[in-house]
Amino acid sequence: MTLSGDTAAGRLAIIAGGGLLPSYVAEAARAAGENPVIVALKDESDRRWEGYDHAVVGIGDFAALDGLFNRYGVGRVVMSGSVRRRPEWREVRPTLRILMKVPAAIRTLLSGGDDTVLQMVIRLIEGNGRRVVGAHEIAPDLLAAVGPLGAVAPGEEDRRDIARAAEAAEMLGRLDVGQGAVSIGGRVVAMEGLEGTDEMLERVTGLRAAGRISPRRRGALVKLCKPQQDIRADLPAIGASTVFNAKKAGLAGIAVEAGRSLVLDRAGVIRAANEAGLFVCGIDRGLPAWGLE
Amino acid sequence: MTLSGDTAAGRLAIIAGGGLLPSYVAEAARAAGENPVIVALKDESDRRWEGYDHAVVGIGDFAALDGLFNRYGVGRVVMSGSVRRRPEWREVRPTLRILMKVPAAIRTLLSGGDDTVLQMVIRLIEGNGRRVVGAHEIAPDLLAAVGPLGAVAPGEEDRRDIARAAEAAEMLGRLDVGQGAVSIGGRVVAMEGLEGTDEMLERVTGLRAAGRISPRRRGALVKLCKPQQDIRADLPAIGASTVFNAKKAGLAGIAVEAGRSLVLDRAGVIRAANEAGLFVCGIDRGLPAWGLE
Repeated sequence: MTLSGDTAAGRLAIIAGGGLLPSYVAEAARAAGENPVIVALKDESDRRWEGYDHAVVGIGDFAALDGLFNRYGVGRVVMSGSVRRRPEWREVRPTLRILMKVPAAIRTLLSGGDDTVLQMVIRLIEGNGRRVVGAHEIAPDLLAAVGPLGAVAPGEEDRRDIARAAEAAEMLGRLDVGQGAVSIGGRVVAMEGLEGTDEMLERVTGLRAAGRISPRRRGALVKLCKPQQDIRADLPAIGASTVFNAKKAGLAGIAVEAGRSLVLDRAGVIRAANEAGLFVCGIDRGLPAWGLE
Repeated sequence: MTLSGDTAAGRLAIIAGGGLLPSYVAEAARAAGENPVIVALKDESDRRWEGYDHAVVGIGDFAALDGLFNRYGVGRVVMSGSVRRRPEWREVRPTLRILMKVPAAIRTLLSGGDDTVLQMVIRLIEGNGRRVVGAHEIAPDLLAAVGPLGAVAPGEEDRRDIARAAEAAEMLGRLDVGQGAVSIGGRVVAMEGLEGTDEMLERVTGLRAAGRISPRRRGALVKLCKPQQDIRADLPAIGASTVFNAKKAGLAGIAVEAGRSLVLDRAGVIRAANEAGLFVCGIDRGLPAWGLE
């Protein structure tokens, strides 16, 4: 087994929330010669981690996290996967160092936007001499690139929907509310809050069923990274299930921010998109027409 | 019966969409000495209009609308109530004057944001020499004023939620997406798209049931008029049912924009708010701290 140079700086820990991403990161880490230790977040991580050194830690239990990092000699930390709950006050088990910063740290953990909370968590981890790295640094193949991923490319009307939904998603991100929006026929019909992308797409499916969206208009889902967010945490992600849900919602396709979004199971996403006749593409806010022309 | 001065300029027509507002406007118009003719929008208006001169017209049927206005000698038009559907292409029955402007007018009707569409409808009606007036001009008592409406006033944490949700609602409005947002514990958790306020509140109720929002945090619903919108159409409105739904969603209360939002059945709203222990208040973006301190 070849150890990467970074490994000398301490073992890699993967803090695993929900969804598919932690598995992809763990596999990519092994493929790169790492021996990651998995910290599965209680009530969030939804797979079993047999075959890896692993432990389960409650959200907000920074004391246990610190103990684990010390025991395994962790030098680098990746945060990956979704975290749906915020800790309750009684669940936060601060370390002595955190206590010195109370109440600012605790207040942030309990009530800030996602981005604010992640910044605080990163600072707390790095304050102990460890380094937080992005999932995309461990698994760079997951990053979306500019342009269509499958056989279908967005048409002119789709590009208009992409531009409209991207404008809305960017604004949502600036407010640290969410990362996604849906435009249909040039009109933003849904914006993602705490409920997440899949539930937002279900809402669009419901609006269609109720006859509130023309069946002749297809539309696009756009997911963007929040402009100010630390890309080491919570990059927007899509997988094959996102494609299925977009199809159910009657959309023409999905656009995600190139270089700042993750495509999980790329082969599965392409297969799902081609079978459904949907486009899936990367877009770049720095390029004319989002790099789509 | 005393006729108001304006009546000389032609009879008042009320274009009635869904919900309670059209009834309040019709009653207020009668109380002011008008003899309004009701144009109930097909599949949108949800009450019967016995006792008023009335007719049912399909959405997008401008030819029929023009015919009605001519038959009843209509000089002033109020648009009131919700319109959930957009006309399909085949439903739009343009007048000759509209045809001269095709395709811009038709394209707008089918795909613009609410505000864009309402502007176009107002222009189409006014282009025929009629005047579009706001529901609040006919029924000024419906307008919200600054300050608490019932017995409960927002506390310090509530005011923070009001400010956060108002920031999000303002941005939503600028994008012509929606008028409402919910903040809980200083964090925006839901933004209103095409689904409307009641469905957004249901979403918050669901997020609570799923344990994704702390039961210790209450939060606020804020509805604002879109900054650029014509206040003659589609002012934000709340009624007693909004209070019930906010209560179910676990919120501490509701804030609406003073002078640019309607409170339907004020006595019923106050009763519901007091029984539920919720605040309902008017806020003003032109005042320090939204006029709440």
